[in-house]
Amino acid sequence: MYRDLMCGKVSLQNLDKKVKLAGWVSKRRDHGQLIFIDLRDKSGIMQIVFNPEISQGTHLKAKELRSEWVISVEGYVKNRLEGAENTEISTGKLELIVESIEILSKSKTPPFEIIDSNEISEEIRLKYRYLDLRRASMQKKIKLRHEVTQFMWDYLSKKDFTHIETPILIKSTPEGARDYVVPSRIKNGAFYALPQSPPQMKQILMVSGFDRYFQIARCFRDEDLRADRQPEHTQLDLEMSFVHQNDVMDLVEGLYINLIKNVNQSISIDNTFERLTYDQAMERFGSDKPDLRFDLELTELSEIAKNIESNIIQNSLRSKSILKAVVAKGWHTLGRRDFDRLTDLVKKQGAGGLIYINIPKGIDGQINLEDTSGPLNKFYTQENLDQIIAETGAKSGDVIFMIIGDKKIVNSSLAFLRSHIAKEKNLIDKNVMKFAWITDFPLFDQDENGSWQPAHHVFSSPHEEDTKFLDNDPGKVRANLFDLVCNGVELGSGSIRIHDRSLQEKVFDVIGYSASEVSNLFGHLLDAFEYGVPPHGGMGLGLDRLVAMLSYEDSIREVIAFPKTQSASDLLFGSPDFISEEQLSELSIELNEINE
Amino acid sequence: MYRDLMCGKVSLQNLDKKVKLAGWVSKRRDHGQLIFIDLRDKSGIMQIVFNPEISQGTHLKAKELRSEWVISVEGYVKNRLEGAENTEISTGKLELIVESIEILSKSKTPPFEIIDSNEISEEIRLKYRYLDLRRASMQKKIKLRHEVTQFMWDYLSKKDFTHIETPILIKSTPEGARDYVVPSRIKNGAFYALPQSPPQMKQILMVSGFDRYFQIARCFRDEDLRADRQPEHTQLDLEMSFVHQNDVMDLVEGLYINLIKNVNQSISIDNTFERLTYDQAMERFGSDKPDLRFDLELTELSEIAKNIESNIIQNSLRSKSILKAVVAKGWHTLGRRDFDRLTDLVKKQGAGGLIYINIPKGIDGQINLEDTSGPLNKFYTQENLDQIIAETGAKSGDVIFMIIGDKKIVNSSLAFLRSHIAKEKNLIDKNVMKFAWITDFPLFDQDENGSWQPAHHVFSSPHEEDTKFLDNDPGKVRANLFDLVCNGVELGSGSIRIHDRSLQEKVFDVIGYSASEVSNLFGHLLDAFEYGVPPHGGMGLGLDRLVAMLSYEDSIREVIAFPKTQSASDLLFGSPDFISEEQLSELSIELNEINE
Repeated sequence: MYRDLMCGKVSLQNLDKKVKLAGWVSKRRDHGQLIFIDLRDKSGIMQIVFNPEISQGTHLKAKELRSEWVISVEGYVKNRLEGAENTEISTGKLELIVESIEILSKSKTPPFEIIDSNEISEEIRLKYRYLDLRRASMQKKIKLRHEVTQFMWDYLSKKDFTHIETPILIKSTPEGARDYVVPSRIKNGAFYALPQSPPQMKQILMVSGFDRYFQIARCFRDEDLRADRQPEHTQLDLEMSFVHQNDVMDLVEGLYINLIKNVNQSISIDNTFERLTYDQAMERFGSDKPDLRFDLELTELSEIAKNIESNIIQNSLRSKSILKAVVAKGWHTLGRRDFDRLTDLVKKQGAGGLIYINIPKGIDGQINLEDTSGPLNKFYTQENLDQIIAETGAKSGDVIFMIIGDKKIVNSSLAFLRSHIAKEKNLIDKNVMKFAWITDFPLFDQDENGSWQPAHHVFSSPHEEDTKFLDNDPGKVRANLFDLVCNGVELGSGSIRIHDRSLQEKVFDVIGYSASEVSNLFGHLLDAFEYGVPPHGGMGLGLDRLVAMLSYEDSIREVIAFPKTQSASDLLFGSPDFISEEQLSELSIELNEINE
Repeated sequence: MYRDLMCGKVSLQNLDKKVKLAGWVSKRRDHGQLIFIDLRDKSGIMQIVFNPEISQGTHLKAKELRSEWVISVEGYVKNRLEGAENTEISTGKLELIVESIEILSKSKTPPFEIIDSNEISEEIRLKYRYLDLRRASMQKKIKLRHEVTQFMWDYLSKKDFTHIETPILIKSTPEGARDYVVPSRIKNGAFYALPQSPPQMKQILMVSGFDRYFQIARCFRDEDLRADRQPEHTQLDLEMSFVHQNDVMDLVEGLYINLIKNVNQSISIDNTFERLTYDQAMERFGSDKPDLRFDLELTELSEIAKNIESNIIQNSLRSKSILKAVVAKGWHTLGRRDFDRLTDLVKKQGAGGLIYINIPKGIDGQINLEDTSGPLNKFYTQENLDQIIAETGAKSGDVIFMIIGDKKIVNSSLAFLRSHIAKEKNLIDKNVMKFAWITDFPLFDQDENGSWQPAHHVFSSPHEEDTKFLDNDPGKVRANLFDLVCNGVELGSGSIRIHDRSLQEKVFDVIGYSASEVSNLFGHLLDAFEYGVPPHGGMGLGLDRLVAMLSYEDSIREVIAFPKTQSASDLLFGSPDFISEEQLSELSIELNEINE
């Protein structure tokens, strides 16, 4: 036995009793006569004391100890001297007077101290992940991930869901991102694919009558890694039979509210989630994943703009552009340089420029055009200004920002500006999670060649009343599709699926799949649809991102024990790596000339 | 809303109330005036009745219904007529008088009826897995798998374990079976491997101070699929710090005992598991995974054999052979043909032949040689027989089976014979699970070239007192290695790991890894060992096999929703399959000429 108690669990109950502890040397203070060590394990820290009067030999051994050595010690628990107490740790009133010690493992001087500090480069952290993970903050995040996952298991089990493992070696299909593939040794030239998410399999499970399925599922995407993607990520995948959209949303809403209240009491969360249609979200926030922790709603001013006698504006409007505005409250103090900076920012988002109207502080009642300033002010009439102010609700001391142009760009640029203002103005409470459902997405997007692509995936069902547009106007078809967003981030996406073969084939047709492609790629699902399918729907919800948000972290790498870098490599284990000629030959594959 | 109650949940509380149910048409009886349908969902079956006097239109629709159509019905719950009750289902006293019906999905005639019957070929079952999974027995097994997994989560969480997800895209290492590999698109020519089990990663987690880790982990092996292997399987993977072998065994023993009592009350299981060393298991049962549900222990008779004046026996003994026996109680009635059949069976296991002594029934006291029969009887003296009987404990009416030859073959043949006798004699109670720990395995096995290979894996630690043999007599080194076996099947394997760099390097040396191989394949682990490692150990335990045993199934395919065939292909989804030239070219790989 190396220990009979964990370091952080020593309490007054152990006073004057003999206990055995084991852990890492965290800090060491040699006072010549007495040596004090903070002994650390997962549960916390306990001060242990070596006194040559208690044991000469043990004290001698303690002199050798260095940071991160692993030891096991036995001794008596005593009260610390008055004044030597540490109120920051649970064991801070006690110490262990060591009678014997066993050195279990030595350590070189670590490349960084095992304390919570953000000053280590991520590269070093990932290379020495085993040391990085020793830090209390990393331990806490990984533990939180455990708690989140466990809560999901419990909650969904109680709601009569069955956890079912679906295969990881599956067939490659062309939906979504690029598949990772695995060469088959038995069937030469053939490949398995790793699942991007298991949508077809969970639909088959509904056909099988499992009624409610969930899985903590590993998903894989061979993408060019943007900011914060990983080649593999974890998803809470769920599917329900005999449900409408609201049933799925209600279930997930209940899960998330209870989950968050359970695992992080300092986070404030509403008791119901706001529900917005895609159109409403775009109109009010310029984004289908709006951050609702702050107001700053957008106002469309295209109608008013028609009466502004500026060529810039009139020319833009002629080409189907729109004008939208956002008001920054109390920002009248911004100077020319600030406006230039903000203009540069929105230009990077694609906007042609940034129009603003600065309303000075201290005006009571009517705001006169001549009191305001801004690049296009000379073109407005007082009536234009009155209408803009009435519509946006701007007040004395505010700045009205406006962008004109293509609808998509105006929305995305203002959505960006909105978030930027909120950050600069410190409008964001990091202890708030504001969830919302975004519904009624379009079923199809048109790509640059004019072809229709599924906006989310090919299995989402259209609104019944919109199916009439499938043939001639697919862009008008709304889907029974719903996203869960939180603080400006999409946390999950769901839909009610098509459960009818002919409707599914119709959708494949709109997208342009040939009959043979459909049969090869989706034949098994369509065949299953011939044998009695319940109406069903479900969601895939990112676990990594949720845990990162609950940990106040921006990057999902912070909540993954062994993440990969942006070039999809593992700095600790050194993957990917070259394999032997023998392995290649067994798989009947050859490498092309390598150009790196 | 398609339903407000599940079919199997309708009870007297709903009597005379209006309810809405949805499900599959399981059985349909058309009595002309009345149509009766068994409506099925996950929870069970409810009889629903269509009466034209209640609704002409609904009754008309009901006439169309066929097996496996999916419907939603609304009506009043009533008592069945006396005599029409079905005591086999929970809703058997009630029926629903349907007022309205919605047909949600039609079905072709399924290729087999959705009832529990074993008469369908596995190929058909796998091809139509979505129908196969509708059967109550399959639903139950998948549900049991859920319960087993959930219990593990709960139990281990309470014991302070943290569930940590380790990567699935890792680096290929040469231990164990063949790796599945995944070509990297970003680093051309390099590959990831899928984990066979995550041993190095969990060791790193111990170095990181997580103290107790577990994972329900997917593992992959590209093996030539023997009887009941799958390319991917699920493992309960766990690791603990500051532990000795007994700590790990105690923990797992507690988990399994509680788990089994919880999920299947009809199974009888001991309150402590037997513990046998590898040597004891081989001696007493000829196997390191003995089935302890029946006795039939082996007895070594090599010493006695020395005095038997048979050339066959003496020649065999000279070449280091051994003679061992097993007694089949009450098998005196076996005839010549039975013995021939049994001889053929053990010959298939590699044995040279089968010696037996048949002791007739009805002998009181001393058994005389001339009363017995058997192929070598003429060579025995009465003293030989007395000794054999004393040693084996055979009685009047028994048959003593003996095999002579190479130790390995004698053991494996008798172990096989032992199980065979138990099956033929019906000695096995299928409701008993007899667990045992097998300990003190040798650390190394010698392969046919005389090289030393790790008996289990390269990270297991040697007994401290045996490390002196590492240099000159590796075969003598016992390991801190322990298997969990049950009913003749290995359910898991564990060890206390090496946690010292130089000892680990020594073991690599015995196996014959070069310094550069060690550095390339295990460098990250050895580096981690430089920074303070706790003593640690753990296990990997097969989940599929455990659930199969708890379901009284021989094949793990019975407890996997979408298993693959023995040629590693998926008959439902059609994987593996060919991928596009574009995919291949992005990965910079080419296929060799395909020879199928």
